[in-house]
Amino acid sequence: MTTSPVSPEVSKKSVTFVLVHGAFQTGATWDHVATVLRRHGHTVHTPTLAGHGPGEPMNLTHADGVASLVGYLRDHTLDDVVLVGHSIAGSFIAKAAEQLPDRIKRLVFLSSLTVSDGNSLADEFPPETSAAFGMADPTQGILLPFEVIRERACNDMELADAEALYAALTPVPVAFFTDKLDLTTFYQLLGSGQIKTSYVNPVNDIAFPPGEYGWEKRAERLGPLCRILQTQGAHYAMTTQPAELADTLVQAGCD
Amino acid sequence: MTTSPVSPEVSKKSVTFVLVHGAFQTGATWDHVATVLRRHGHTVHTPTLAGHGPGEPMNLTHADGVASLVGYLRDHTLDDVVLVGHSIAGSFIAKAAEQLPDRIKRLVFLSSLTVSDGNSLADEFPPETSAAFGMADPTQGILLPFEVIRERACNDMELADAEALYAALTPVPVAFFTDKLDLTTFYQLLGSGQIKTSYVNPVNDIAFPPGEYGWEKRAERLGPLCRILQTQGAHYAMTTQPAELADTLVQAGCD
Amino acid sequence: MTTSPVSPEVSKKSVTFVLVHGAFQTGATWDHVATVLRRHGHTVHTPTLAGHGPGEPMNLTHADGVASLVGYLRDHTLDDVVLVGHSIAGSFIAKAAEQLPDRIKRLVFLSSLTVSDGNSLADEFPPETSAAFGMADPTQGILLPFEVIRERACNDMELADAEALYAALTPVPVAFFTDKLDLTTFYQLLGSGQIKTSYVNPVNDIAFPPGEYGWEKRAERLGPLCRILQTQGAHYAMTTQPAELADTLVQAGCD
Repeated sequence: MTTSPVSPEVSKKSVTFVLVHGAFQTGATWDHVATVLRRHGHTVHTPTLAGHGPGEPMNLTHADGVASLVGYLRDHTLDDVVLVGHSIAGSFIAKAAEQLPDRIKRLVFLSSLTVSDGNSLADEFPPETSAAFGMADPTQGILLPFEVIRERACNDMELADAEALYAALTPVPVAFFTDKLDLTTFYQLLGSGQIKTSYVNPVNDIAFPPGEYGWEKRAERLGPLCRILQTQGAHYAMTTQPAELADTLVQAGCD
Repeated sequence: MTTSPVSPEVSKKSVTFVLVHGAFQTGATWDHVATVLRRHGHTVHTPTLAGHGPGEPMNLTHADGVASLVGYLRDHTLDDVVLVGHSIAGSFIAKAAEQLPDRIKRLVFLSSLTVSDGNSLADEFPPETSAAFGMADPTQGILLPFEVIRERACNDMELADAEALYAALTPVPVAFFTDKLDLTTFYQLLGSGQIKTSYVNPVNDIAFPPGEYGWEKRAERLGPLCRILQTQGAHYAMTTQPAELADTLVQAGCD
Repeated sequence: MTTSPVSPEVSKKSVTFVLVHGAFQTGATWDHVATVLRRHGHTVHTPTLAGHGPGEPMNLTHADGVASLVGYLRDHTLDDVVLVGHSIAGSFIAKAAEQLPDRIKRLVFLSSLTVSDGNSLADEFPPETSAAFGMADPTQGILLPFEVIRERACNDMELADAEALYAALTPVPVAFFTDKLDLTTFYQLLGSGQIKTSYVNPVNDIAFPPGEYGWEKRAERLGPLCRILQTQGAHYAMTTQPAELADTLVQAGCD
């Protein structure tokens, strides 16, 4: 056997990335990661999903969020896409993959929830957070309180940076969290190998508590062929560790 | 949303740290970390608790250890303190916080035991170690054997360094480990948000075995708003990784 | 207490390493690690076990694999050996230690299975993989399919590097995985302290899924005095991170 010294370098092959932000954010959260990826020769799209960003209606369903992503992929006639979903966007990329499996090279779940078939996003949170979604006023949408975001998602940031991040967040439709999701087709595509997946976990990401709700359980749901990678940073690694995250996304998305 | 590139840098704001050593050690264990923190403009205290260090009486109770810490904070009229507890000192800082909640900005548990209300420290160890505390001679105090410290706490050190560290250890009162602790007030203060907490886990810390006794379980006990951070090093990260640990303590202790 | 600043440096003391490759590979997998270790003054052996490499008979038993390792240690009159086993070689080094406990300074399990007494290697895999071993044709030997190796063991590599690695793999005897192993003596030697162990886990190693089959459970089986260290890289850290792995093996193997 010849073993050439293999550095864990980023791929030189150009890839089309579609980076999907998490709850309360917009495509702008990816600005720094996108800059790094483009500098390395990749094509990068950072759409903002329906129900996210200022001035959006709050009476949307989870399916509306999915439709906006599917529409984006169709309108831009994107193909051979590495479709990355951050946090709750794991559910949007899974549902989009059901409709457009042939356009997707690989799904990459970053700090993501991986929803079990028939569950809502809220069902995948620990009980206390889950209850908060159930009690939210649908006409107002929902936004998690600052202290939760600051301690559990901005745990590697200074206060001023956490405040700046939070100031840019906007509420999203409550139904995004409470709609039950039929993921039969997604898990069939996964089981038959028609969809490939990777899971990326930043080592300091404790947005969801370790253990029963930890990343290992969520990654395991993607089956025995899911490619798992750990990286630096916490839940907002795109903000605190954009260069390393970009490299990890390339590793996660390569053939 | 504007996302300024946020490096996970250390805070520029000056903080008062009180660093509390673990079992068998004294405040001197923090020398290198304190030097780094002071160089960054922070105020650092490294008291040695009653029952620790050469020549201490062995008939002290856990409450005596707590009293020595509370006394130190009062005598030095310290305020807005980031109170860091290493290993078993998690129990001393929790009890001290019950008496002086208004003087404490945040508790930082480093590689710590987090004792459940009504338990002793010994109750939080795996059964084989727990039994050793029960069988110890109270007049002699207790010191864990070299091979345990060397393999489980000095796992990232060479033998000579482990031997030097062990040579400086002294026995502590057995009652520190076997006294049952009433932590009702601590958990009330935690639940009501009057005490804030962080948990720092060095990635190679296996002083307590992963799994049932692992750091995740201990951090989880501090509730859904505990700020968790991982850092380099093992159980004695203050000895092997003082600069990085200092940075992580600043992240853990900032607003 | 005097605390000299202890960097987690590699030991300066010369050590005799015997590095044992995992399934489907040969001693050549260690080439880069061996080069680094030798440059630091250590003696390094990288034997290829019976049943591994091109042209080997497929009707061998697990005991034949062990015998080839024991024979190597005897023929080269090796003593005070740090015996490192990668992946399934955890079982070969444990069985070899039963026969030659006095020649072994320490066993180092790297990304290893640690087989419970009376189990086969296959029993330690998740059910779906375990079943594959049971159904394999003994006359052909067994080699895991490319997609499994690529996604779960080469997760930090580019496709071309994963393909090159896989092209050099060869089937091994099915009985290696299905023979039940009597490890009574090994666990007695471990319990009595006559054999010392370390466990090294590369943080991105997901060859075995986290959780029930995760590295923590495997390391825990080696008892409360097992020295555990995490390092960079994934299942083939000897290929992607040879310099860092060499340093970690020195830490794992030192007195």
